[in-house]
Amino acid sequence: MENLLLLTDNSELNLSAYRNLGVHIFTEATIKPSDYASITIMFGWKPDISKKVLTATGSSLKWLQTFSAGVDYLPLAQLKAKHILVSNMSGVHAIPISQTILLYALYFARDLPRVLADAEQKHWTDQHNFGEVVTLDDLTWTIFGTGHIGSELARLLKSFHAKVIGVNRTGHSAANFDETYAQSDWRKAVADTDVIVNIMPLTKETAHFYDKTFFDFLKSAYLFVNVGRGGSVDTTALIEALHSDHLQHAALDVFEQEPLPISSPLWQMPNVLVTPHYSAQMPHLGRAWDKILLPNLEQFMKDGTVATNRVNMKNGY
Amino acid sequence: MENLLLLTDNSELNLSAYRNLGVHIFTEATIKPSDYASITIMFGWKPDISKKVLTATGSSLKWLQTFSAGVDYLPLAQLKAKHILVSNMSGVHAIPISQTILLYALYFARDLPRVLADAEQKHWTDQHNFGEVVTLDDLTWTIFGTGHIGSELARLLKSFHAKVIGVNRTGHSAANFDETYAQSDWRKAVADTDVIVNIMPLTKETAHFYDKTFFDFLKSAYLFVNVGRGGSVDTTALIEALHSDHLQHAALDVFEQEPLPISSPLWQMPNVLVTPHYSAQMPHLGRAWDKILLPNLEQFMKDGTVATNRVNMKNGY
Repeated sequence: MENLLLLTDNSELNLSAYRNLGVHIFTEATIKPSDYASITIMFGWKPDISKKVLTATGSSLKWLQTFSAGVDYLPLAQLKAKHILVSNMSGVHAIPISQTILLYALYFARDLPRVLADAEQKHWTDQHNFGEVVTLDDLTWTIFGTGHIGSELARLLKSFHAKVIGVNRTGHSAANFDETYAQSDWRKAVADTDVIVNIMPLTKETAHFYDKTFFDFLKSAYLFVNVGRGGSVDTTALIEALHSDHLQHAALDVFEQEPLPISSPLWQMPNVLVTPHYSAQMPHLGRAWDKILLPNLEQFMKDGTVATNRVNMKNGY
Repeated sequence: MENLLLLTDNSELNLSAYRNLGVHIFTEATIKPSDYASITIMFGWKPDISKKVLTATGSSLKWLQTFSAGVDYLPLAQLKAKHILVSNMSGVHAIPISQTILLYALYFARDLPRVLADAEQKHWTDQHNFGEVVTLDDLTWTIFGTGHIGSELARLLKSFHAKVIGVNRTGHSAANFDETYAQSDWRKAVADTDVIVNIMPLTKETAHFYDKTFFDFLKSAYLFVNVGRGGSVDTTALIEALHSDHLQHAALDVFEQEPLPISSPLWQMPNVLVTPHYSAQMPHLGRAWDKILLPNLEQFMKDGTVATNRVNMKNGY
């Protein structure tokens, strides 16, 4: 019998399947401070209670499974020192995130801001005045991050006949990409590109990777998309670029500070689309989570390892 | 030497290639009434001048090439009686129109109306409150019209792993569709569908095809898209459906009356996206047109026929 602390309100998880594997389930509502040290498995991370479980005297925590793909918000050094197995939810979000990115691109490509502003005024713009429309096949895409999400996005973009360049740590080739470059070679990857997509995890190597040097290097890029982490972008440099010839549009789901502060100029820049860190949201998310949770739980009950999605504690993803 | 009347302001057409084929080019600006009868080829249709050329005493018009895919607005009976060859631009618009349709679907699927309204108020909605998001693979699509545009849309939707049903005149199978039905069997094609897309030409058979009977038959369809012709839809019945449980959303590019009158309730219904008949707009449209115009002109100069896109004057498309 293992004691599992479940930190989510999602009601679709198959809890009876967990119990059948020999797990006793605690939730935020049912756990008492005297139970903290007995928790061996934690699903999800809520700072207050999670830190108490992790640091309880005689803590028996062995495994932390997140509901997120990125794990930058975890106390990784502390988890590593305590030899706690960490696994993430990478892969689950590839479909909703890649579809959200296509929405971002089509939103600007079909000049939807103008269409919606016109509709608000009940104004019919003659079709031939839409000089700014573009089609996705006319754009070259550079995707930073060639994992599950990047690869799914690249696959869809190839069906639109777009050119797709990938960037990852070493420059190794990756499924569905026409070319790949190492992160250190980013200049080659963005020299002639139109759309730049950040899906990289937030690590020491990616913090403020998109800075003034980066944006100044762009000639007249069509669109910058961030669905990775806000901390990878120097927001001041991004805003400057959006006021210059270096960058035409941005679609941003993540921000250095979330919720995005009311004082941020990003909210109402006409060439920026702000969405509230929701690109991974999908219907029946709990059922999708269980495709990772159940095999991992089964494996863990057998031998204390996980079947998939173990986080490399050195790389941080 | 043939006399060609060119009725477009598009500046990208390769006019010198036309001239090299032995054509003398008139435009609205250069033509005189005394030239009307000498025109043998007309590219485009502008009612006032085109009717004058067509009915000029001793008219020598032999070929009309449109810049549109649909030809419902032409005096087809009159053209047929005069044995004038008519060709259209079908196929050119498949890429921009299919991408516009994907934008329509993603606009509602990712709940963009709410995201944009929130951004207007600088309001950050917690991501977990986006209960209404859906992914395209979860939707079944029924596309009325399995020609160039329908087939390209179906191809893209298959890459999203959606189920795609086609409807055409006879129910013949068509590339990229999982199933096809005859128009008379439309009930089978929409019984369990989520998204209905109209791309049919406007003919006697399709006028007000989407009427009260049609919409009443729907259970709770997710989205109705019209990029065909407004006349295929009974607008009153559509608006009624959008206020009922039969239909959740509509994205409309074409209308019974265009421009859409200011008095139309469609402009500001929260579950409707109105766009100004612009789904076919694309960058470098003239260059795309020339891929049909030049082979047709070449063929016409040889033997008086066209290489592609001849309109069947009996079917009207």
